[in-house]
Amino acid sequence: MDRRQFNTTLLAGSLGGMFASSANAQQTGAGPAGPVIGMLVYPGMILLDLAGPLTVFNIMQADIRLLARTLEPVSTDVGISIAPTHHLEVTSPKFDVLFVPGGLKGTIDAMKDPAMVEFVKSAGESAHFVTSVCTGSLLLGAAGLLKGYQATSHWYVRDLLPLMGATTRQDRVVEDRNRITAGGVTAGIDFGLTLAARLKGEDVAKRIELLIEYDPRPPFAAGTPEQTGSGLTEDVLRRRGALIREAEIVSRAAGAKLGI
Amino acid sequence: MDRRQFNTTLLAGSLGGMFASSANAQQTGAGPAGPVIGMLVYPGMILLDLAGPLTVFNIMQADIRLLARTLEPVSTDVGISIAPTHHLEVTSPKFDVLFVPGGLKGTIDAMKDPAMVEFVKSAGESAHFVTSVCTGSLLLGAAGLLKGYQATSHWYVRDLLPLMGATTRQDRVVEDRNRITAGGVTAGIDFGLTLAARLKGEDVAKRIELLIEYDPRPPFAAGTPEQTGSGLTEDVLRRRGALIREAEIVSRAAGAKLGI
Repeated sequence: MDRRQFNTTLLAGSLGGMFASSANAQQTGAGPAGPVIGMLVYPGMILLDLAGPLTVFNIMQADIRLLARTLEPVSTDVGISIAPTHHLEVTSPKFDVLFVPGGLKGTIDAMKDPAMVEFVKSAGESAHFVTSVCTGSLLLGAAGLLKGYQATSHWYVRDLLPLMGATTRQDRVVEDRNRITAGGVTAGIDFGLTLAARLKGEDVAKRIELLIEYDPRPPFAAGTPEQTGSGLTEDVLRRRGALIREAEIVSRAAGAKLGI
Repeated sequence: MDRRQFNTTLLAGSLGGMFASSANAQQTGAGPAGPVIGMLVYPGMILLDLAGPLTVFNIMQADIRLLARTLEPVSTDVGISIAPTHHLEVTSPKFDVLFVPGGLKGTIDAMKDPAMVEFVKSAGESAHFVTSVCTGSLLLGAAGLLKGYQATSHWYVRDLLPLMGATTRQDRVVEDRNRITAGGVTAGIDFGLTLAARLKGEDVAKRIELLIEYDPRPPFAAGTPEQTGSGLTEDVLRRRGALIREAEIVSRAAGAKLGI
């Protein structure tokens, strides 16, 4: 690593820049000219849905675009706002990857917004990979992008996907041709690494997995309804009941528009 | 759930607010009066180090304070800036939890900043729990808070902890009395759930684990040097060599000041 490359690594922060001087990156076209990844951001989204895959894509030096209706900061579940980098309207119409994060209430609002649905449809139809984490797949579904595809979502809404023509598959990350959808929130890390392997090869994905020390040890066996049992699951469903019912109404309406 | 509580849940976004109307929360004092968690933010930090635990603490309705030298937005590894909510100087001197995220270059800079080290020392000495993810434990160490404690850090710097009087223990999350330190980046999720159980009990922690669907499936067995083998590990160490050497110099200097 010469001094210029070292400085680049410093400037790129502590995890990004890892591949700036990588022989592998030079061979595969990483760096500023890496894959163009359009990541939708919208009010009420879950920051962690975005932060997992974003961390992975940033390390692999992707050209990341945070897409929103306006460049006004977008609120997230944890109170941290995200500044979009590109307008939906004026952004490049062609992405290597279109990514949609989740956030139940925020996703419902986005599904009700015809301009948002139209953008996702248009960007998704031309993207090389069409992807989501958590409830983001409901928005892909409303845009008609999951019709005839296997897909997943957060466990508490994944059974709504068939209303929009998809077949629910109960896996952490579901790949069906160029559609890659993942389960709730933390599934974004598994998704990000899976997509990194598709875009850059397994060696790059493994190096990122090592760099983010992804050797998870959940302190409880409670990450799925199957693991945790009915008591806690019913409690969550009860608390989320009104929003889940609203998601069903919106999904049903979207399906009707799609002729399903 | 009555209408007022339902609206609170809506306003709190899609994950937060889960416990606003929870019987458990009422019993244990959650809600706006929940535990006060001071989370340090500093330039060059890793967003995911913060986002994992922040998501968990937000769901359990903690009183979260993002602490920095000024209220100017703080840059992170992925290009998203975070707006601090409290000054280091004027913030409450007493936290239930002090948390320090990592970010190798950013952590080194913070360790070199006497005012930052002094703040961490002062806040840590009065906090009920003193905690970190990733290289954040180096800053705790520089503040003298790990002297005589078992602790961990990102795998590529954890062997520096003894320079500041700690004993390295190679676990995902290391608890020693009121010090809880975690491994690199993604270990923040395991840490957050572990601390949630200490603060609010296992049932609350399990419900959060279910809500964030934490049933991880790393696509590769590459999350630790032991899993991935020597080739990729040496590659990462080579690329990070200059920064790791700088971290060693700074840790050694901090240890000398602590009389170690």
